[in-house]
Amino acid sequence: MFIKEVYIQRRKELRMHMKNGVVLFLGNNDTPMNYPGNTYHFRQDSTFLYYFGLDFPGLAATIDLESGEEIIYGNDFDIDDIIWMGPQESIQHQAAKVGVAKTKPGVALDDFIAKTHKQKRILHFLPPYRADNKIKLHQLTHISFDNLKYASVELIKTVVKQRSIKDDFEIAEIERFMEVGYLMHTTAMKMAKPGVVEQEIAGAIEGIALSCGGVVSFPVILSKRGETLHNHSHNNLLKKGDLLLIDAGAESPLHYATDHTRVAPVGGKFSEKQKDIYEIVLKANMDAIKAIQPGVPYKEIHLLAAKVIAEGLKDLGIMKGNTEDAVANGAHAMFFPHGLGHMMGLDVHDMEDLGEDYVGYDEEVSRSNQFGTAYLRLARKLQPGFVLTVEPGIYFIPELIQQWKSEDRFNDYINYQKAIEYIGFGGVRIEDDVLVTPDGYKVFGKPIPKTVADVEEMMNL
Amino acid sequence: MFIKEVYIQRRKELRMHMKNGVVLFLGNNDTPMNYPGNTYHFRQDSTFLYYFGLDFPGLAATIDLESGEEIIYGNDFDIDDIIWMGPQESIQHQAAKVGVAKTKPGVALDDFIAKTHKQKRILHFLPPYRADNKIKLHQLTHISFDNLKYASVELIKTVVKQRSIKDDFEIAEIERFMEVGYLMHTTAMKMAKPGVVEQEIAGAIEGIALSCGGVVSFPVILSKRGETLHNHSHNNLLKKGDLLLIDAGAESPLHYATDHTRVAPVGGKFSEKQKDIYEIVLKANMDAIKAIQPGVPYKEIHLLAAKVIAEGLKDLGIMKGNTEDAVANGAHAMFFPHGLGHMMGLDVHDMEDLGEDYVGYDEEVSRSNQFGTAYLRLARKLQPGFVLTVEPGIYFIPELIQQWKSEDRFNDYINYQKAIEYIGFGGVRIEDDVLVTPDGYKVFGKPIPKTVADVEEMMNL
Repeated sequence: MFIKEVYIQRRKELRMHMKNGVVLFLGNNDTPMNYPGNTYHFRQDSTFLYYFGLDFPGLAATIDLESGEEIIYGNDFDIDDIIWMGPQESIQHQAAKVGVAKTKPGVALDDFIAKTHKQKRILHFLPPYRADNKIKLHQLTHISFDNLKYASVELIKTVVKQRSIKDDFEIAEIERFMEVGYLMHTTAMKMAKPGVVEQEIAGAIEGIALSCGGVVSFPVILSKRGETLHNHSHNNLLKKGDLLLIDAGAESPLHYATDHTRVAPVGGKFSEKQKDIYEIVLKANMDAIKAIQPGVPYKEIHLLAAKVIAEGLKDLGIMKGNTEDAVANGAHAMFFPHGLGHMMGLDVHDMEDLGEDYVGYDEEVSRSNQFGTAYLRLARKLQPGFVLTVEPGIYFIPELIQQWKSEDRFNDYINYQKAIEYIGFGGVRIEDDVLVTPDGYKVFGKPIPKTVADVEEMMNL
Repeated sequence: MFIKEVYIQRRKELRMHMKNGVVLFLGNNDTPMNYPGNTYHFRQDSTFLYYFGLDFPGLAATIDLESGEEIIYGNDFDIDDIIWMGPQESIQHQAAKVGVAKTKPGVALDDFIAKTHKQKRILHFLPPYRADNKIKLHQLTHISFDNLKYASVELIKTVVKQRSIKDDFEIAEIERFMEVGYLMHTTAMKMAKPGVVEQEIAGAIEGIALSCGGVVSFPVILSKRGETLHNHSHNNLLKKGDLLLIDAGAESPLHYATDHTRVAPVGGKFSEKQKDIYEIVLKANMDAIKAIQPGVPYKEIHLLAAKVIAEGLKDLGIMKGNTEDAVANGAHAMFFPHGLGHMMGLDVHDMEDLGEDYVGYDEEVSRSNQFGTAYLRLARKLQPGFVLTVEPGIYFIPELIQQWKSEDRFNDYINYQKAIEYIGFGGVRIEDDVLVTPDGYKVFGKPIPKTVADVEEMMNL
């Protein structure tokens, strides 16, 4: 964890932003894979980590906004726990490390919430995303399952405000683990040879994240069927001429994410056809990064990237007509059907559990309902301290091409005859992680090869 | 999955064993790590796999015991799903592969259960262990959360009866993935050198399971603090003279487990003190394996291993007095505080979600309430087709030694002065996977080195 003062300060700010009532934070618990005793790796709730730093299951915390009283709830280990799980410092001792003096056993939370209810005080909580915490909240508050999502908007907005701006400790932690992302991606590039099954590479790079003391920040996306945006199956045999898309990142011991996408030509050399598409995406990636600065709505940069893509596809004869109009109407989204990027931090899609509309949008910028741009996760004006991804892409999705073609959709902007020639091509996405600075931007980490020449060089080392 | 006939036959047997009503099987769903869109690797419910084979989220199934009607519930992919997750064959098409002709959309389950309830028919279901399935069952049946655990005993007993006896397809699948377990353990042995952090090895061997198309069958236990039975932290730096305990296994693509424990002396050579303890555990492991045959209660073999351990510790002056009495009274459990082994199959602790008392005990053999033996997961008479683990161990747990000493517990059998000399030693466990055959036993897999000489040889290759 960070030094104690970091957490004390964060909670102080939270109290300053909010008016009255009690704030409840539920930590995460162990989650069963196939039976209660066989659990997935423990992942603490990110907001709990942000304010309370403690990284083990079975915790909750409350902050009384009026009195300022902070309590952490949790149970100390007994001898059976020690035999099976090893000794653990007392909750009291651990809470002190994040500046919380008062602790109580887990069961005391029930009484505390009942008292809050009896006193008719406002109870603020965040929308639960784990089913066990939904049951817990339901049992604590008697709110129906359907209504639990109506959590405290005041609390959500406060948390988003604070977590959106990364402090120097957080930025250093993100930068520190970029080394692992670099190792994962360059290893994948070197392994992308004919005769290898995707799973061999996916397993090796996940093993790297684990060996370095982290985990993967999200399930590895690694496929020669790169046109499937979140492809988690890794069964294909690589052949010369395939294009392998790798979207992967590591999560540091303090749970900060890295997230990169690279594309590697199996066999080590891009074909001309692959190079044509690759260079368009690379230009979109680099132009978008250069446009990053405080005050610019990220939606504008998304549309800038969309225009680069539409323009490039026009040069290849795949799109046609006026680029501005094509993008305004959303025709580019057949090839670029997702958003340019998202916030990144304690979550790879930072704070997504709190609601994308709170994280990526505000009073000034609201969500588009146009296919493609509607998936944009971050649209609002950039501020110094934002950490975000830049990840344009071009994909040839057979089902989407066929569907739009059969609907005669955007015949003015799309040359279907040409687009169909690319079915089987796969997809290209190029993604970097960027910090918004007071006067522009800074790309995180040692650069992972991304020009055609650099990728080919790394693959042939 | 296996051939269709396997699943048809299993369901037919289920129907033969049970009388009337309707059986409901809930498949598992994706589980969020830190927000709904970022999920752990999907793990299907093992009993769902056993009867229905389909290995993706969002499924349920019913069997009408009277009419014999079988239905699989699930939703087909729409174009958005295809864009993000790739194309998927229709539920109808996939259900046909396991011999189920009738499918319905997911929402139809609600109506079906409501109808069953209205007709006052018995609804059989298994105890839910995932919180989202608890909510689902609660909403389907209106049974309170506290009472959901009172699932159908008739169904539990039938499932345990069937799943306990592994058929040839299952045995071949378990044997097939033993190769991966071998690779994981021999890799760990070779990596156990001074200067290495445990995490490097734990990550590498998990990477092997993934690269081979599987996952780990349980979180890797790998520690020089081997006296903690389920030690999942891997932060220690290995030094010459440390004893590294590795308890790890792989889960095959069809979700059958492997599970082995080996102990490696860091630097490649056991000290005399380590060898003394190691040889006792090895004798317990081998004597126990040799005692396996149909009709023998596994509890007897557990007690046999306990006696080998007590006898060996007596030779070293750590225990004393009459061995039979020491074991009958449970004095050995300070050093061997867990059971000899457990069933293994689709779960590494097979069917543990159904209740250990149904899986490991019966009318003839009931659970001991003595510390140590009470943890025995399998005690009943062995039958041909059982697959189980044999994993005796000796540990020096500082907290347990201190507690029992302070209570003057078993002063007649334990030489505390001598035991205290071993604090810091760690622990030794040696574990193999065994099939009960009609005339004895068969140890699964290519033998992973386990004699002192073989372990040292592998480490120094």
